[in-house]
Order: sequence, then C-alpha cells, then structure tokens
Amino acid sequence: MSGVGLVAAQRAHFAAPLALRSGAVVPAFDLVYETYGRLNAARSNAILVCHALSGNHHVAGHYADDAHNLGWWDNIVGPGRPLDTERFFVVGVNNLGGFHGSTGPVSPNPATGKPWGADFPLVTVDDWVQAQARLADLLGIDSWAAVIGGSLGGMQALQWAINLPERVRHSLVIAAAPKLTAQNIAFNDVARQAIITDPDFHGGHYYEHGVRPLRGLRLARMLGHITYLSDDQMAEKFGRVLKSGAFTFGYDVEFEIESYLRYQGDKFAGVFDANTYLLMTKALDYFDPAHHFAGDLAAALAPARAKFLIVSFTTDWRFAPARSREIVNALLKNKQEVSYAEIDCNFGHDSFLMDDAQYHALVRAYLERVVL
Amino acid sequence: MSGVGLVAAQRAHFAAPLALRSGAVVPAFDLVYETYGRLNAARSNAILVCHALSGNHHVAGHYADDAHNLGWWDNIVGPGRPLDTERFFVVGVNNLGGFHGSTGPVSPNPATGKPWGADFPLVTVDDWVQAQARLADLLGIDSWAAVIGGSLGGMQALQWAINLPERVRHSLVIAAAPKLTAQNIAFNDVARQAIITDPDFHGGHYYEHGVRPLRGLRLARMLGHITYLSDDQMAEKFGRVLKSGAFTFGYDVEFEIESYLRYQGDKFAGVFDANTYLLMTKALDYFDPAHHFAGDLAAALAPARAKFLIVSFTTDWRFAPARSREIVNALLKNKQEVSYAEIDCNFGHDSFLMDDAQYHALVRAYLERVVL
Repeated sequence: MSGVGLVAAQRAHFAAPLALRSGAVVPAFDLVYETYGRLNAARSNAILVCHALSGNHHVAGHYADDAHNLGWWDNIVGPGRPLDTERFFVVGVNNLGGFHGSTGPVSPNPATGKPWGADFPLVTVDDWVQAQARLADLLGIDSWAAVIGGSLGGMQALQWAINLPERVRHSLVIAAAPKLTAQNIAFNDVARQAIITDPDFHGGHYYEHGVRPLRGLRLARMLGHITYLSDDQMAEKFGRVLKSGAFTFGYDVEFEIESYLRYQGDKFAGVFDANTYLLMTKALDYFDPAHHFAGDLAAALAPARAKFLIVSFTTDWRFAPARSREIVNALLKNKQEVSYAEIDCNFGHDSFLMDDAQYHALVRAYLERVVL
Repeated sequence: MSGVGLVAAQRAHFAAPLALRSGAVVPAFDLVYETYGRLNAARSNAILVCHALSGNHHVAGHYADDAHNLGWWDNIVGPGRPLDTERFFVVGVNNLGGFHGSTGPVSPNPATGKPWGADFPLVTVDDWVQAQARLADLLGIDSWAAVIGGSLGGMQALQWAINLPERVRHSLVIAAAPKLTAQNIAFNDVARQAIITDPDFHGGHYYEHGVRPLRGLRLARMLGHITYLSDDQMAEKFGRVLKSGAFTFGYDVEFEIESYLRYQGDKFAGVFDANTYLLMTKALDYFDPAHHFAGDLAAALAPARAKFLIVSFTTDWRFAPARSREIVNALLKNKQEVSYAEIDCNFGHDSFLMDDAQYHALVRAYLERVVL
C-alpha cells in the first residue's frame, strides 16, 4: 500500500552545458524527478533520495495509470514513514545517463540526431552531484536537510557532503563503500563483457538495428543478483530444492535457484537499457573520493560539514560492514560527527531496500532529530 | 622444473557398457591416463589423482614434443615431492565426458556417427568412480593406497571411499564440500547460460557448424576465475591499479584486474571445450552423497573404511573451511579416522594447486605414514 498515493513525474530542462569529470561536455540535459510532501516556507525540509544501479526517480507512490508500479523505496517514504512526508519534502531524481526520462544513451545525440547509444559520455558520481545541484537550484533548495541513498546511491550522499558541504546538513550513506575492490570491479567487468560481446550490442548502437542485447543484459543481471543476495538467504530460500523433485539430467532448470535467477534476468532484460547498465557500473568503478588524496579518505572527507549516518548490513558481502567502517573511521579521524549502525539483516546487499524493523526505526529516529 | 620428467599419455578402451546414474548407458568408452613411478610387486602403492573442472590426466611431467606443458599438479608429484614417485605409483586420468582424449562430447556418437555434442549423457561423480574403477581393474590395482583430489577432485576422493570402501585405504579431500550451496549452483548456472545462449552454441552441436561458443566460454571462465581467487589476493595483486595510469572513460580495459580476467577468459576459451565445461559444472551441482540419506552425511559416509585427510584453505570462499568441517564432523560422528587441517593460504580456492609450504608438508607427512 503506497503511503504518498498518486504521484506524477516532472521534467526539468537545463540549458547550460555541463562539464563532466571525463572532460566531455553535455551541451544541455533534462532530469526527470518526483517530489513527495511540501517544501516548507524556510525551504529547509528537503531530502534528496539518490538511486542505485537500476533505480530511478520513482521512489514512492504510484501513477494514475499504473496502480501496481510502486516506487522502489515506497516502504520508507510517506506520511508517518521514516522519511516522513508530513515533515519532509522528498525528491527523487533519475540520474544523468539513466533511461527513465533523464538525458542518457537513448536520447538524441545533438551531433547526429540519432540516439547517443554507447557514445553517451561516461558519468561519475561527481557529475551526478553537479547535475542534481542544478535541480536543487531550480527547486529553490539551498541546503538539503539530508541526502540519502543505498549502494551507489549512498556514494552520491557521501560525494554531496564532500563537494558541496554548505548544501548538505545530513548525509545518510547506506550499504555503500568508499570505493570498489578489485573483486567488485571484476564482477562488473564480467557483466559488461556479457553485454558488449552480445552480437546484438552493435557497439552500443542497437537502437538503430531494431534489436537489444537481451542475452548479455540477462546474464549481467543474473550475475548481479547473486551479489545482491546473501549466501544464507539463498540457502534458506532455495537451498538445493529441485524444480521437479528429481534430477532431470539436462540443461533445463533443475534447481529452484536456477529458475529464480533466470526469471530475474529475463524480467530485467525486458525493461532495462543495456547502455545505461554499462554506464552505471562504470560510475561505480570510478567512485573513489580518496583518489586525489593519495588514498587518504579522511583527507577527502575533511571538507564535509554534514553530520553522517552510516549503515551497513551483516550479510552484505558486496559492500560488507568493514567497507562502511572505513568511512566511519575516516570521519572519526577528522572528529566529524557520525553515527554508525550494523544491522543484522538476512537479505545481503538488498537489505537496504527491505522493510526491516530495526533498520527503519534507526533511519526514523535519526531523521526525527534533524532540525529544520 | 618437472620432477618426473618425460611422460606419455596412454589410452584404455572399455568395451562393456557403463550404466550411468541418469539411466543413460555409454555403450563403450575410452579413458586417457598417465602414470608416474612404478607399481610395486604387492600392487599396494597406487595413488589415484582425480581432476577438477578444467583438469585432465596430465598431472605431472612434460611431453617430448612440448617441454613447457607441465602437468597441472606437477609441484606435488615427483621424486621426493609429497606424492613421492620413488615410493608411490601415481595415476592421473581424464574423466569420462572430458575432451582431452577420454570419451566425451567431441567423441562420435555411435547412433549418428557425428560428435555427441550436448547429447553426451550427463555424468555424475558416482559415474566417474565407476569408470575409474574399470581403469583400476585394468592396471591390476585392487586397492588404492590413496585417492586424492582438490575441489571436484576431492569430491571424487570422497565418493570412492563411500562407493568402493574395500578399494580405498586413504581418501584425501582437499578444498571440497559435501555438496554445492544455492550460491555455488547459481554461479554455475550463470556460466552455463552464458555458453548455452551464445548464438555459436547451436544447441551444443557447434562442431558441425565450424564455430565454437567462445564468447560464452570466455564469460564462464571470467566468472569462474573470480570465485577461484580470494578477495584479499585480488586486492593485493591488482587493487585498483589502472592499466594506463589514468581513467580513460571508455569500455576498454581501465583496471589491471579487467585486463587479467579478460586474458584468462580468452586463453581458456581458446583451449577448452564448452560442452565439457557444461557437463563438469553439472557434475558439481549433482554431487550430494547425503541426498539418498535424507541429508544425513554421516549416514552416507558410514560405509567408508578409508582413513581421511580433509584440507581446507582460510581464504577459499567457493568452498570455505566450514564446508570441509561438515565432512569432518560427519566422520567424527561415525568415529571414523580423520585428520583435518585448515591452511592459512592467500590464494582462495586455487590454493589447492599452489606450492604452499605448510600445505605440501602436511600432505607429505600424511602420505609418509601410509603403510604399503
């Protein structure tokens, strides 16, 4: 049951060029966004929700023509929910490079009139913060009460606090890491190679060929999905249960886990765009705020003026609690104000999306103390 | 430097049909094998080395025409090495379904005269034990001094002790597990789907089309490789080191880890057969000796008369030490004789292939006490 009820996406156009970290310049761009609750007179009650790899601006509520399409974080946003829309004005935005309406690989490349495809400039978390700041300007939000996100979204919450310290009062970084490990990058690269070597990829210009690299995108999602779930959860939910009760000695589905993964892969490949998937995984790989500080995360975080809530989940092996503690320790080293919680939750990396009582109570309690 | 020196593969033909666990029957089959050292007069000094997913019969030494092609476990087999060929007669065999000479998917299907392809019957660890026993008969080996293997090879060592208890005096089970978890199966299924959905797979009959599903096999190996290495080792060896020293903001190799993985994938795809890869991963999935004992591993192991050495490696997350301890605990429950060691080695699952001093000293010491 949606808390905020009917919602509608809005579109903002930004005519001024945006210079990206890569050196490329996006001449102009659109961002699609949604808002929930009301901006107060002091314009001090706004929360920005940043999305992860496959998320978008549809954070909460449902559309008039699609009652079943609930926002991806509906369980945490709404009247009386942890991101309480009676008190806060909550903003969800589809990032630059996305394909849910914001300018991205499916948009026309002004130079050719055809879709950008894989020629869309690679974007970084830095670039997203810059683009989101334009949206904040448009909405008249000088300073966010909080920027919040899980996984890649948490990285944006962290980067906001570093890049625009005067504009973030609280940064809530959930199930994230200060940078990817070699193993994290390796998984991303297998996913990318699955897409790029799909004969239907056509160098990223598949739109013009009337096909989509469904095989590659399906594999990428199957693989990703394994890293989002915990080993324990998979064992409990599927174990070695057989689809038909007995071995069939063939290559069709034998184990329930195979059925589940293939279904997830097919479903995702049907609705997501491969070029955006590639671009999002690269943004993950590039994220490393300490990079320009010789690996010193504390030095990178020093400019931040926000207070921090860092949250990790015990069974998350993609970004394990130790990765969150790296951020906490760097903040403590700087004597910055930080709260940290490690939530005992069985859902692995995906825990940040779940309606876990302890986790939601924590976010609620933290946000209740935010001064508007 | 090879210990055993020049070696040559031999071929054994078995004319009697072999009934498989699946119900299929292989009418006749060949096994290719190698031997090192000499069988003693009492025929009591033979050790069978079982290979894992991508291994074969070429365990040690090198060939006259290829001095650089050392056996895959050469570091542990040879005069004065832990599997001391001055004392033991060591046998390596390419399993049924392999493609290094033993009957498998590339062999002609008697029913069609064409290669079996993906129609080659799926084989289980049970079937391999049965086929290997035929080879033991041929070599005049009533009882192995030891059966040893790592990973899928360790599963064979375990199954030998269960199925043919009078023929195995010692079972050395290294970096193995009593069955795969849902997560293990999930990784295998992504690898299989990469191969099967490759347009060059042609339902497993690619030999007839003059192509090979190289893209799929490459992805399967890249993914497999991530699970063979430890997170720590990847971090130490590659970390976030960039190939060209700076971000290139494109989809070519940026990080060293990407370069390494793609290279490993390409190399493997060039020399291995996709149908055999599929079949080997299924044998892994099916392995579960407790399956017919309502999940009671101790009951499954009860018939064994062998003494056991179980070895795990601290950084192995594919088959973590806890998985080896399941075997140890089941044996202890039966009051069976078992030694267990958890080796602190940084190379993840691949540790079993490494020349680690503590690990090799352990295997050496164990085998020195084996009575011939």
